[in-house]
Amino acid sequence: MAGTSWTKWRALAVRRNASGIARDANGPRSSHKMFMGRRLQSTAAEVTPKAGGWGTYSLVGGCLLSGLVGYQLASNTKSEDVKRNAADSPKFRSPEDFRKAIDELKATFPSEGAVSTNPDDLQAHGFSAANTYHKGVPHSVVVYPLSTEDVVKIVKIANKFLMPIVAYSGATSLEGQFIGRQGGGICVDVSGMDKIIAIHESDSDIVCQPGAGWMDINETLKEKGIPLFFPIDPAPSATVGEMLSTGCSGTNAVRYGTAKGEWFLNATIVLPSGEVIKTRQRSRKSSAGFDVTKLFIGAEGTLGIVTELTIRLAPVLPTTVAIAQFPDVRKATEAVEEILNKGVGIQCIELCDAAFMDATNLYGPSARKYAVTDHLFFKFQGPTQTSLKETARIVQEVVKKHGGGKWMQAKDEEEAADMWNDRKNAHYTGIMYGGQGCKGIATDVCVPVSKLPDLVYETQKDIENSGLKGPIVGHAGDGNFHSLLLVKNEEEMAVARDVVHRMVERAIALDGTCTGEHGVGIGKRDYLYEELGEGTVGLMKTIKNAIDPKGLFNPGKLYPDPKPSKRD
Amino acid sequence: MAGTSWTKWRALAVRRNASGIARDANGPRSSHKMFMGRRLQSTAAEVTPKAGGWGTYSLVGGCLLSGLVGYQLASNTKSEDVKRNAADSPKFRSPEDFRKAIDELKATFPSEGAVSTNPDDLQAHGFSAANTYHKGVPHSVVVYPLSTEDVVKIVKIANKFLMPIVAYSGATSLEGQFIGRQGGGICVDVSGMDKIIAIHESDSDIVCQPGAGWMDINETLKEKGIPLFFPIDPAPSATVGEMLSTGCSGTNAVRYGTAKGEWFLNATIVLPSGEVIKTRQRSRKSSAGFDVTKLFIGAEGTLGIVTELTIRLAPVLPTTVAIAQFPDVRKATEAVEEILNKGVGIQCIELCDAAFMDATNLYGPSARKYAVTDHLFFKFQGPTQTSLKETARIVQEVVKKHGGGKWMQAKDEEEAADMWNDRKNAHYTGIMYGGQGCKGIATDVCVPVSKLPDLVYETQKDIENSGLKGPIVGHAGDGNFHSLLLVKNEEEMAVARDVVHRMVERAIALDGTCTGEHGVGIGKRDYLYEELGEGTVGLMKTIKNAIDPKGLFNPGKLYPDPKPSKRD
Repeated sequence: MAGTSWTKWRALAVRRNASGIARDANGPRSSHKMFMGRRLQSTAAEVTPKAGGWGTYSLVGGCLLSGLVGYQLASNTKSEDVKRNAADSPKFRSPEDFRKAIDELKATFPSEGAVSTNPDDLQAHGFSAANTYHKGVPHSVVVYPLSTEDVVKIVKIANKFLMPIVAYSGATSLEGQFIGRQGGGICVDVSGMDKIIAIHESDSDIVCQPGAGWMDINETLKEKGIPLFFPIDPAPSATVGEMLSTGCSGTNAVRYGTAKGEWFLNATIVLPSGEVIKTRQRSRKSSAGFDVTKLFIGAEGTLGIVTELTIRLAPVLPTTVAIAQFPDVRKATEAVEEILNKGVGIQCIELCDAAFMDATNLYGPSARKYAVTDHLFFKFQGPTQTSLKETARIVQEVVKKHGGGKWMQAKDEEEAADMWNDRKNAHYTGIMYGGQGCKGIATDVCVPVSKLPDLVYETQKDIENSGLKGPIVGHAGDGNFHSLLLVKNEEEMAVARDVVHRMVERAIALDGTCTGEHGVGIGKRDYLYEELGEGTVGLMKTIKNAIDPKGLFNPGKLYPDPKPSKRD
Repeated sequence: MAGTSWTKWRALAVRRNASGIARDANGPRSSHKMFMGRRLQSTAAEVTPKAGGWGTYSLVGGCLLSGLVGYQLASNTKSEDVKRNAADSPKFRSPEDFRKAIDELKATFPSEGAVSTNPDDLQAHGFSAANTYHKGVPHSVVVYPLSTEDVVKIVKIANKFLMPIVAYSGATSLEGQFIGRQGGGICVDVSGMDKIIAIHESDSDIVCQPGAGWMDINETLKEKGIPLFFPIDPAPSATVGEMLSTGCSGTNAVRYGTAKGEWFLNATIVLPSGEVIKTRQRSRKSSAGFDVTKLFIGAEGTLGIVTELTIRLAPVLPTTVAIAQFPDVRKATEAVEEILNKGVGIQCIELCDAAFMDATNLYGPSARKYAVTDHLFFKFQGPTQTSLKETARIVQEVVKKHGGGKWMQAKDEEEAADMWNDRKNAHYTGIMYGGQGCKGIATDVCVPVSKLPDLVYETQKDIENSGLKGPIVGHAGDGNFHSLLLVKNEEEMAVARDVVHRMVERAIALDGTCTGEHGVGIGKRDYLYEELGEGTVGLMKTIKNAIDPKGLFNPGKLYPDPKPSKRD
């Protein structure tokens, strides 16, 4: 029966490739060497982040997807039982067997660069971004598939030798989703699967491979004169595969929602069994049962590997930017709540605290100088200039009503882009704010919007008491909040970890979440019991065990251990 | 461990009820008699549908939700194996045991009206709406829980006696989601659990019970002067519980998306084991793993029963209505595609075909007369009258460009409401169009928007050849399409079934779905293999088996039999 859907998939794939749009002139095999070249070049660029480091093929971080095969013997989800399950204690083979698996991978993919055991490559794929608080672990081998069939071959070898698989693409994850496993594993780097297969302008959707970057997709649409874009905007080098896998969002979420909404219409997925499924057809809506696509969104590659996606697009609209000064975060948040309920054309509302503004004054890309107090950065959108002006007028009235001070509004597109850059460069100005040799620890939490001031105040106080610097920037329209903790050594890193821990506990206590958009990986897994309850975590583990009974896909990520330390 | 989340839930429930808003002055037990009264009254009103029949407590139809417990032994999802699974062949006990279960239910819920074996009640809960092509089956017993604890008690009795459970609330489902099971089962009618527990205006969300109707919620918000509403708009008497369960939408979906989007922030669910989970906290965003809430959206009660929900709300905005005449559906659809990409304030775009307009001229609520040709009904929305005027101007330009004829635009709110009523009364004018003693068969499919004309033309031709009358109305902005086939006897009913079958096959062949918003129930289950492929259906069954290994929750619905007849 599996054969049937496999054949069905192959037929689909062939039809699509016939009408497909290939951005890479090289054929699957022949492009391996060139592709490897890109990967190794980008390693250096990533070690210390700088604008130039944000290439399409950034290396650090990773992403994975999910599938389904069989189910296991168990009576219920009590954690005594869960201990016996693959999600908690998968059984893997010996280093000797893993060596055999690597030999079989090399025999299966003989072309140069298709399978790498180059230490630089293993290291680069197994280590987290320069700016996280997670240590990395190198993989045993990195394989570069270029098709769904390639991924199936790799998964079948992993099954034969019971060797773990960590999928990897855009490499922007911050919570260690992609790091290697102690004891070894296969890294499946799908970033070479980056083709746009079909664009359906009249249906506002696009079919592509998981390695395609969201910025590349939007650039391609622009080049073709198609007035549509994919509005979810995480890190610039994020790929659509990892975006689906982390359930990400970004500054546009206040207008367009997140990856967990209705942007991913369907996905072709290689399950841990090696079976290939397509989750849905291409219509915008369906109520034909629960949406299987949603199961893989945010699963961080623990359930399968995505090899093709259909994504909904939105119309490109005129935008402009305004910046408002506030006496404090509470006033700013009250303004945000009222603005959101006006139903005006808001694309982004970003909260930047006094420390952030200080960093921007000192190191920002523009010559603009700001008062060192809390600010809101707005991006307005509308079908016409008239609608943009009307939105600006309404928002400015609300800002005034809530004690907003200086109001800066872009007079043209160029100034708007320049003003928005001051916000977009938060990461770099933040790092520089820490001084020479400083590293920035980026993490996020999210709470109901009305709770944002309490969360920010408590956290600012905590950061101040810790002796660290930590500019704060939040997607105020969503109650989502980022801090960039600046550290210079291991001692400060330990202090930063404690600050992050208290920030997460605070967010959960405020009816919020340990992560609004960065995901769980290894960084947040111990908080899931507290946030979701044991029944819900047990349910997630039940599904993991049903889908991946051997526990091959990204072991040690996402799902907490049966008895998290905080409950001992 | 389950105990922990249960205690946690109880604590939450107590806290919420303390601050809760009860719309029913009666206490849980004492309101049973009064509540039963409402049920029996509404039976008569529902037999032949009329405006008066659309009360808050309409009886026909039903809805269910989903949960998780344990997992089963199996090797993979090949259908040979699936045959052995609970999803396909659950083992239930004897009629004698079912009688014992009913006695235990009566002993557990002694208050008058809490447990009913009144034949009228069993019949009313087990039969589909007057306007579907599905025959009903009465349940063995109907229980009216008033709290999560009540539902847990019922589920534990169902487990003890291995008796199936069909949950039920707003009773508007059209595909037989709620009908009884041959051999007997328990109907859990949660429509008495209809309280609004908390409204968070500053966070734009509301916490309520599953029996609350979306129209009741919006009326309550209006009464309280809160400028927010729940924008998903299926049948007027739909409850939020069944809306979640069917993954529904409605005319507003083109602007607000569907129940599968980000409107249901979390749900409290009783799993088939009797364990209670809460899927998420209340923040708008979270990337803490895959969203467990999404697993229950569209699961039609095969995975658990929802007992509480948190729903995101949207700001109430000024709206107005315009109607445009078109030479044909293709021109109308081309206009829709271009309008959607303008990014103007569109709340609804409804396609009404010539037969629909003829029916409206003859039996519509307004005195307005339309040309008997295809039309588009628009509802515009915007923060101000200026923005509404601008949207109308832009849309009218596009309409003209695509050959649109007469343009009617409401001059005030009253006229707008009157014009929109001509569309909203589609069902009643359609039924009257069929003449005395006629019954209307309502079903839906959905395709990519660009495929809508092909689907409509082929279907119109098919209806004409069949000798039936069948006005067509579509949510043109989503590619979602409804036909109301008018039949007077069993022979015509058989013809109608064939027309529906061919319409579904046509939609699937056009990369669409067998149902855009009505769900699967018993009406569409045989199409799932063809639409989703065996691998994806196998995955859905794997999850069903992992969550409900005894197959107690809504057996015979949603999941297709291992070998659907179309494949024999």
